[in-house]
Amino acid sequence: MFDNVTMKLSIEPLLLSALKEDITTCDLSAVGIIPLSKRGRCTLTCKDNGILCGLDIFKKVFRLLDKSVTFLDFASEGDTVFSGDKITVAEGDMACILSAERTALNYLQRMSGIATYTNKMVKILENSNTKLIDTRKTTPNNRIFEKYAVKTGGGYNHRFNLSTGIMLKDNHISAAGSIKKAVELARTSAPFLHKIELEAEDINMVREALDAGVDVIMLDNMSIDLMKEAIEIIGSQTEVEISGNVTETTLPLLKNLGADYISMGALTYSAQILDFSLKDLRPIE
Amino acid sequence: MFDNVTMKLSIEPLLLSALKEDITTCDLSAVGIIPLSKRGRCTLTCKDNGILCGLDIFKKVFRLLDKSVTFLDFASEGDTVFSGDKITVAEGDMACILSAERTALNYLQRMSGIATYTNKMVKILENSNTKLIDTRKTTPNNRIFEKYAVKTGGGYNHRFNLSTGIMLKDNHISAAGSIKKAVELARTSAPFLHKIELEAEDINMVREALDAGVDVIMLDNMSIDLMKEAIEIIGSQTEVEISGNVTETTLPLLKNLGADYISMGALTYSAQILDFSLKDLRPIE
Amino acid sequence: MFDNVTMKLSIEPLLLSALKEDITTCDLSAVGIIPLSKRGRCTLTCKDNGILCGLDIFKKVFRLLDKSVTFLDFASEGDTVFSGDKITVAEGDMACILSAERTALNYLQRMSGIATYTNKMVKILENSNTKLIDTRKTTPNNRIFEKYAVKTGGGYNHRFNLSTGIMLKDNHISAAGSIKKAVELARTSAPFLHKIELEAEDINMVREALDAGVDVIMLDNMSIDLMKEAIEIIGSQTEVEISGNVTETTLPLLKNLGADYISMGALTYSAQILDFSLKDLRPIE
Amino acid sequence: MFDNVTMKLSIEPLLLSALKEDITTCDLSAVGIIPLSKRGRCTLTCKDNGILCGLDIFKKVFRLLDKSVTFLDFASEGDTVFSGDKITVAEGDMACILSAERTALNYLQRMSGIATYTNKMVKILENSNTKLIDTRKTTPNNRIFEKYAVKTGGGYNHRFNLSTGIMLKDNHISAAGSIKKAVELARTSAPFLHKIELEAEDINMVREALDAGVDVIMLDNMSIDLMKEAIEIIGSQTEVEISGNVTETTLPLLKNLGADYISMGALTYSAQILDFSLKDLRPIE
Amino acid sequence: MFDNVTMKLSIEPLLLSALKEDITTCDLSAVGIIPLSKRGRCTLTCKDNGILCGLDIFKKVFRLLDKSVTFLDFASEGDTVFSGDKITVAEGDMACILSAERTALNYLQRMSGIATYTNKMVKILENSNTKLIDTRKTTPNNRIFEKYAVKTGGGYNHRFNLSTGIMLKDNHISAAGSIKKAVELARTSAPFLHKIELEAEDINMVREALDAGVDVIMLDNMSIDLMKEAIEIIGSQTEVEISGNVTETTLPLLKNLGADYISMGALTYSAQILDFSLKDLRPIE
Amino acid sequence: MFDNVTMKLSIEPLLLSALKEDITTCDLSAVGIIPLSKRGRCTLTCKDNGILCGLDIFKKVFRLLDKSVTFLDFASEGDTVFSGDKITVAEGDMACILSAERTALNYLQRMSGIATYTNKMVKILENSNTKLIDTRKTTPNNRIFEKYAVKTGGGYNHRFNLSTGIMLKDNHISAAGSIKKAVELARTSAPFLHKIELEAEDINMVREALDAGVDVIMLDNMSIDLMKEAIEIIGSQTEVEISGNVTETTLPLLKNLGADYISMGALTYSAQILDFSLKDLRPIE
Repeated sequence: MFDNVTMKLSIEPLLLSALKEDITTCDLSAVGIIPLSKRGRCTLTCKDNGILCGLDIFKKVFRLLDKSVTFLDFASEGDTVFSGDKITVAEGDMACILSAERTALNYLQRMSGIATYTNKMVKILENSNTKLIDTRKTTPNNRIFEKYAVKTGGGYNHRFNLSTGIMLKDNHISAAGSIKKAVELARTSAPFLHKIELEAEDINMVREALDAGVDVIMLDNMSIDLMKEAIEIIGSQTEVEISGNVTETTLPLLKNLGADYISMGALTYSAQILDFSLKDLRPIE
Repeated sequence: MFDNVTMKLSIEPLLLSALKEDITTCDLSAVGIIPLSKRGRCTLTCKDNGILCGLDIFKKVFRLLDKSVTFLDFASEGDTVFSGDKITVAEGDMACILSAERTALNYLQRMSGIATYTNKMVKILENSNTKLIDTRKTTPNNRIFEKYAVKTGGGYNHRFNLSTGIMLKDNHISAAGSIKKAVELARTSAPFLHKIELEAEDINMVREALDAGVDVIMLDNMSIDLMKEAIEIIGSQTEVEISGNVTETTLPLLKNLGADYISMGALTYSAQILDFSLKDLRPIE
Repeated sequence: MFDNVTMKLSIEPLLLSALKEDITTCDLSAVGIIPLSKRGRCTLTCKDNGILCGLDIFKKVFRLLDKSVTFLDFASEGDTVFSGDKITVAEGDMACILSAERTALNYLQRMSGIATYTNKMVKILENSNTKLIDTRKTTPNNRIFEKYAVKTGGGYNHRFNLSTGIMLKDNHISAAGSIKKAVELARTSAPFLHKIELEAEDINMVREALDAGVDVIMLDNMSIDLMKEAIEIIGSQTEVEISGNVTETTLPLLKNLGADYISMGALTYSAQILDFSLKDLRPIE
Repeated sequence: MFDNVTMKLSIEPLLLSALKEDITTCDLSAVGIIPLSKRGRCTLTCKDNGILCGLDIFKKVFRLLDKSVTFLDFASEGDTVFSGDKITVAEGDMACILSAERTALNYLQRMSGIATYTNKMVKILENSNTKLIDTRKTTPNNRIFEKYAVKTGGGYNHRFNLSTGIMLKDNHISAAGSIKKAVELARTSAPFLHKIELEAEDINMVREALDAGVDVIMLDNMSIDLMKEAIEIIGSQTEVEISGNVTETTLPLLKNLGADYISMGALTYSAQILDFSLKDLRPIE
Repeated sequence: MFDNVTMKLSIEPLLLSALKEDITTCDLSAVGIIPLSKRGRCTLTCKDNGILCGLDIFKKVFRLLDKSVTFLDFASEGDTVFSGDKITVAEGDMACILSAERTALNYLQRMSGIATYTNKMVKILENSNTKLIDTRKTTPNNRIFEKYAVKTGGGYNHRFNLSTGIMLKDNHISAAGSIKKAVELARTSAPFLHKIELEAEDINMVREALDAGVDVIMLDNMSIDLMKEAIEIIGSQTEVEISGNVTETTLPLLKNLGADYISMGALTYSAQILDFSLKDLRPIE
Repeated sequence: MFDNVTMKLSIEPLLLSALKEDITTCDLSAVGIIPLSKRGRCTLTCKDNGILCGLDIFKKVFRLLDKSVTFLDFASEGDTVFSGDKITVAEGDMACILSAERTALNYLQRMSGIATYTNKMVKILENSNTKLIDTRKTTPNNRIFEKYAVKTGGGYNHRFNLSTGIMLKDNHISAAGSIKKAVELARTSAPFLHKIELEAEDINMVREALDAGVDVIMLDNMSIDLMKEAIEIIGSQTEVEISGNVTETTLPLLKNLGADYISMGALTYSAQILDFSLKDLRPIE
């Protein structure tokens, strides 16, 4: 679950914006038909097998329109759920439920989809010491939801954004003149609580990165053999991240290389949604 | 391409919000390393085969940070592009290019992915009179991009949101008391330039909808046989939309039923991204 | 009354903006004089005869500053009210009531004025099948209130804005090359739940519009005779809207022409306000 | 004309909000028909006789969508214009002109209407030393435009809002306990550059206000005789404002009473619009 | 204390912005460690001697994240407090308290610092008729807090901003051509409830200002002798403000000159903070 | 200097908000007096000795109101400047310069004040390996300016905010149950590019922190002797930060203890402003 602070400061504005995307003036189908201030009850049901993720977000979307909506839960965040499972029963203003339904489901289905896919990938890495991490290849204006879903599925997060973690790539190195110089400049420029990761494309860069005292080395798009060599050279001097078009097919091959992290953009851009439906909205006497 | 009005009023605020998601204070890796106000040049290359979509959005992301950035294009919006194709060459402030790269690519990859997937589905319907349309099952705060991508891929758009089109479902009907009454209320309540679509789940509802004078009937999750019967009954009295978990597999079976529209949520939630990379950023003397 | 969804998403931000227009830092006259957190009671009285409209908006303005304010109503939205009628008695934080009074009244008076004026015009059309509709000639940032007031007064709404309805005018036709081509382009470009209205200035355009299969024809600034001829030609092929500087004087002449709609910009730009006052604010022990 | 600072900080956000009210996603009628980035030319013509007001605002609405739009003026802000007069010729992106037209005209017509009506009222007061002033009975979110229009028409402005001027009314007086006490509290509480005006309903209040040392006395809803008496008592001790349902009919009766100001809410709530049209949009080769 | 209207309209947005400055995504140290929705209690203690100011702001910062937080106060706004004094005991969501602590303290310490410093300066002027006032030399986006703190410390406020008070300086005078002309233009242009202050740099300007009928004359950076002369000339014709790098050292010298106001920018830019700490956060069973 | 990305995304909104704080409607003193669109020239002069900081911000404030303003610089960011030094000559719209002057100076004076004070403190630490760093005790909504000023003065930045660095304090430890457990939870919860700092209050905590494998230990409010002991124990195992009411007086005593960092909240809350004035605004022919 999200903490209250994140929910209030970072998430509510995004949910409101999403609601306004779907309702620019009023819900034309509901106005004039659904009675004002009539309470109703409906049930959220899962239509796939997977990991439930985003239940709080789902609820918050309704609460932003109707503070009085209540939920009776039959499943919890992170649970493995199955097709046909009843998830929660909502009660609240019927018009608000109808108008917010699509937006709430759009979040829930995507978040649960990512959690489910991540969980499947995480299981491939079971019994290794390698953690599966996400990337910044997230859907614009949805990163906070997608990275949270990765964690719910058992994965870990790489840096949230450009302002919270340092990763030096070819452009930084060539601008600085050398790996050594780039690392020095970054150490001086950035607050000291940040580690420095460097993206290495060959063994020479790995060696230079070690000399420069980086904290993490990312082996970018290397062959398996090159990665083995690099990891041997690095030993315990720094942490190691493997990166570069990792897929469900290649993941098993990377499992036992001894890296600390494998990053996989596909967690947030290849996951299929998990299907849910909100059904049987009935007025409450 | 998006028109200037939509770009200014509806899209710029979303792009700015996406940039702020990735850069909450500054780009920690660039600050202190990339020289201020140094211009550079780099190339956008496609790494997959598909339909190019979102090139304007890609460019606008950079322009929001650096008005002086220029692009030399080698491909146009909607083009079929192939892995290895050079798409455009950008010149501008190096730090701005580096900081905006990920956000710009995240849009381009998703939009091109949806256009590509839509195009594949549209080809299945070739030589029929049935149009493929999207749904509201879009990613929150990304609908305008995703619906545009569907059109770029050769599909058509269903209503943009709850404020721009009327669709009466079971809840509206039961609240009104009958299909007839629901349609009457909607006609009275909504501005007259809106057509009224009704979601029918069986033949009885189809008949009642015809009596009520709806403009479009959606056959929701019906069997092929039921759909055939319904379409025969409807004839040319209203337009017909087929809906309900349409997939690449079921689409050919629906092709020749004679519906006007087939809606497919998967266009916006099942498309894989199309991969692009921005490479070889070099300072310009 | 506005539904909760519209109130929350579309109206609250406008009301807050209006309050901030009147109170940029603090209420200089109240600060230092009106005791903090002192509750008071006052009465809203009508000072004209007309249709009450905007009571919910009036209340919401106060509620945005003081959630605890309560109202005891003596009249309901849409009621015919008379000079001297007590409308509602408010109780709440005295300073909030004083500071919000002008903004709340400014909404109520304008909305009731439009409802009253619309109602007067609607009565002219009684016993005809022609509906009186508004236009987009509304006060900037007040359209949602003004169109609602037209409905409260017994009128109907034309399209809410440029994104919710299609009206093809001379500029669209000349850009497309012909009426036929313009209609085709609009049908292809816009989601299918939108009807297409075309503004016709003479009989030729009416005939072309019928050929092109438009849904509604607007007879723009035509003479009575020309309108008669056009309506005869159109028959039941499309709906017909009459438009062009309709006034209280010309409305009776248009009543029996058989049009479906008469649009009248004056509903929202010529209505006089209906006067109300909020009086006798007294502290509650 | 508005100064650049006000235009940038206070007005642009309101104009953008008004544009977004009319275009929530895109202009459905223009998209797909009006060619992208095609320049056109059209003419603003006046269709009434009156005072031109808001030409800068009219232009700015277009410029917010298309920075490159240019205008060739045939009349200036504040000019007396006549039906048929050409006001300005605009050149710019055709789609932007079409999409912004209604919003731009809505401002221009209302502002010119208020300037025209104010000017008519101001002429009634010619050859007196009494200034005609507006009130806070303005349309929500339009005060800055309406008060400016009053000045353009030859009137003067009362306080802009509750944060820029002090007016003590019955509620303030009763909360403080006496006029004397209320004035003392206000003097202590408010920055010293603010004058204090007091609303007096009878001669006793006038006398107390004089004793309390107020700067301006407002004679609220008094009879002509009472006003004469009050003004004689006040002499040159304070400035005097006459207020209370002033109309075109009563204004001549108030002209020679010797007040410094007559405030008239009707300036901003009773003015009829001045009609303009934007015509003959043609593409430029 | 701030009134409810100011708190809602002007202050809440600034506090939210300040919280978002400190928490751009989530509180990395709290997430994963502090249990969700666990209530705790802690104590605010003063660590300096001074004037307590901003207690409401301090509380509001927490309330924006957790509506259920409660406070048990041991001191009141404006109290003289001493090192070691317990100020208030807070109970609420532990994670919210931790995350908001720094922002809340940053406001409280600065506001109490200004109140304390102002109070010290005000005491220097005791037994004179001269009021100590602040300036616009405040910290950007903090003026409303800093000017309030000046009043809490016993000082008075000069104009809040450029839109609420008129001060004519050398640039206005030279643009107008003369003091007389500048004052005339300002009287015509500005609403009549504003007084006009003029900044005079020598005796000639004082005389011209008197002729022009200004309401307040500011003696800007004059020598003591010159100020004496100016004040004698002015007599009771206008109010007088002394201004120009007033410090704790020079203030006693200015005390008995007979000015109505002494303005001192240092009140808001030279005050040291008053130290507080929030300690002993413990879970509540 | 700030990079373009930070300027656009993070700083411009704050500067606009600051301008709107000072100009809620218009500049009452300038309107009606300063001619519209008249260009002028004026000079920024320093009136103190210190470090120039914020020149870009100063300029940007004007540019937000007038894009055409130009500057001819006589000093550069970070320069040591002296009383009387000419800093830059500005040319632009006179009314914009007048209206923005105070806001621009308020930033420049505070930023230069912090840079100057930081520089003085940094000189005390010369010839040691200890870096002087700031804290989060910054002025709300001004952190980005104040932390930048610390760097300009030769200091270094601690974490920007709660979302970019991890610091575990007593509350985190007691919630987790032990230092070891708190560190484990933080390592699991936070992205791996973040180091973990722990606030230790005694030697036991230091030892536990070392066992838990923290990256940085902060010695919080310890005596000199205790700090010596702690630093000896820690050796090169982690970095060390000294914290707790560091002042100009105590800083020399801490200089040679061998800590990596000394953090000093006073850098951002005790610095006096550096005085500048903008003078001699003259119209340009």
